[in-house]
This record gives sequence, structure tokens and C-alpha cells, in this order.
Amino acid sequence: MQPHLSLVTLGVRDLPTARRFYVEGLGWEPFLDLDEIVFIQIGHGLLFGLFPATGLDADVDPALAPSGPASAAPFALAHNVDSEAEVDAAVARAAAAGATVLKRPQHADFGGYHAYVADPDGFRWEIAHNPGFAVDPDGTVRLVTPEP
Amino acid sequence: MQPHLSLVTLGVRDLPTARRFYVEGLGWEPFLDLDEIVFIQIGHGLLFGLFPATGLDADVDPALAPSGPASAAPFALAHNVDSEAEVDAAVARAAAAGATVLKRPQHADFGGYHAYVADPDGFRWEIAHNPGFAVDPDGTVRLVTPEP
Repeated sequence: MQPHLSLVTLGVRDLPTARRFYVEGLGWEPFLDLDEIVFIQIGHGLLFGLFPATGLDADVDPALAPSGPASAAPFALAHNVDSEAEVDAAVARAAAAGATVLKRPQHADFGGYHAYVADPDGFRWEIAHNPGFAVDPDGTVRLVTPEP
Repeated sequence: MQPHLSLVTLGVRDLPTARRFYVEGLGWEPFLDLDEIVFIQIGHGLLFGLFPATGLDADVDPALAPSGPASAAPFALAHNVDSEAEVDAAVARAAAAGATVLKRPQHADFGGYHAYVADPDGFRWEIAHNPGFAVDPDGTVRLVTPEP
């Protein structure tokens, strides 16, 4: 499990307000700009997501996480790996290291395969195989349609 | 103000516990491993910091931030820029876009110049000029001693 961050997602109270701040206010150009989520490329192979906090919370059961301020924090970090087997292995490794599994590895709405774990403080990590998330050698992220 | 993330810092309850999870448990090699902070390189030009939540909170006045779960979230994102003037300009731009200034631009303990702002949800961004934080063309972060 190499240290690698693919996505930082903030769970916001109101997406239009957050969008107005980052996109119109700061002038950050969206990578993907939908009614339900906004992505901005924020680094080499790295996306920044704005997503309603209610949706972020619905993706896991925060009650499973260790209690404390981090568990209630409406944000998630994501670590992408190259295959479903690597998701399983990373989750097993994290659990062996003391992580709490918030969502067991499973097929995801976005077309990939993912799980959520919480670190000892309750910070949420999504571990995902997302065949639609491609990174060019120069770091540009592309959404691709996986081969059937 | 280009969309760019330099640092993700988690404010943890107990640094040895967090270190044990990420460094020993997951096997993530530290970039800097000190009693008061642990940094791990987590992407191209991107560091992941583990820092006691009390220290993270002491760096700003969270009471200034918009109320809500994000304000209480023990974590911060950092956006590095190339000069002190760019810190001032980025803070002014963010404030004009509706950010709350949590710490006005000022010289920092780490030898640079920084400020904190909160986005509309209260998520904390540090905006910093850190002459000691260098990124090689291949994305490797190096700590350098700035010229006097």
C-alpha cells in the first residue's frame, strides 16, 4: 500500500454556495461540474471534490467509526489502487493495522469497486479501484469509459 | 490563484497512535519523523501531515470560522505560493470571494509567511509561502534551507 492520495472530498452544506466560492470566487476551473458534485483538479493526478455532506455521510455508517471530532468531520480522503484485489488487500492491511472498516469492499455506484476505512482518529479513507479515473504521465486526470 | 494542494494535515488525538497506524501499520515511509509532527509524501509535490489536533487548533482561532461540523473538523489543507506578496493576494481574493480570514498574513514559526482562511463551510485552508518546501521536477518534495 503505497502512500498516495487520489481525491480529497469536502462534504459541504450547500453545493451551489461552495461552487460559487471555489469556481467563481477563486477562479478554480472545474474538472467536472454537475448538479450533484463538483470536481476540481488540484494537483498531479489529484482531484478535489465538493459533495453534499449528507451524501458523503450516506456512503458509510459514521456510527461505526471511532468516536471523536474526526469521525464527525464531513470529509474523506481517497486512495485509488489498480484492481479489485488490491482494494481487498489494502483494506485487510488497514484493518490489521487497526483501522475500522466502515464499508466492506463492494461494487460502487460510480462503476468501480470500493471500501471505506477509518483511521484510529476516525478520519475516513475510501480505498477504490476506479477504472474510469485515469492519470496521464503529466498528471492530468481523465475520466475514461472502461472497456466492457 | 491556481487550484493546487501542497499539504493535507490531520489533527490527531495522539501522535504516536497515528504514527503507528500509518508508518508501522500501513508501511508508509515518513518524509519527516519528529516527536511533534510526522510528514509522509503522498503525491507529486504533496505532503500528508499528522499533527496533534491541539496544535492545529492553536494555530488559528476556530471560533472565527463559520459555525458547523467543518469548523470543528481537526484538519487543514494548505496551498503554497511563491512569495509573500502572493500570500497577501490569495488571502485578499479568498476574502473577496466570501472566505473568513482566521489568521492574517504573517511570518510563521516554520520560517515562512502564512495565513489561514475558512471557506463558506468553515474548512480551513492555510495559504503559505514556505521557502523551505521545494518540489523537484519529478514531484519529490525536499526541505531546503533558504538563502539568507
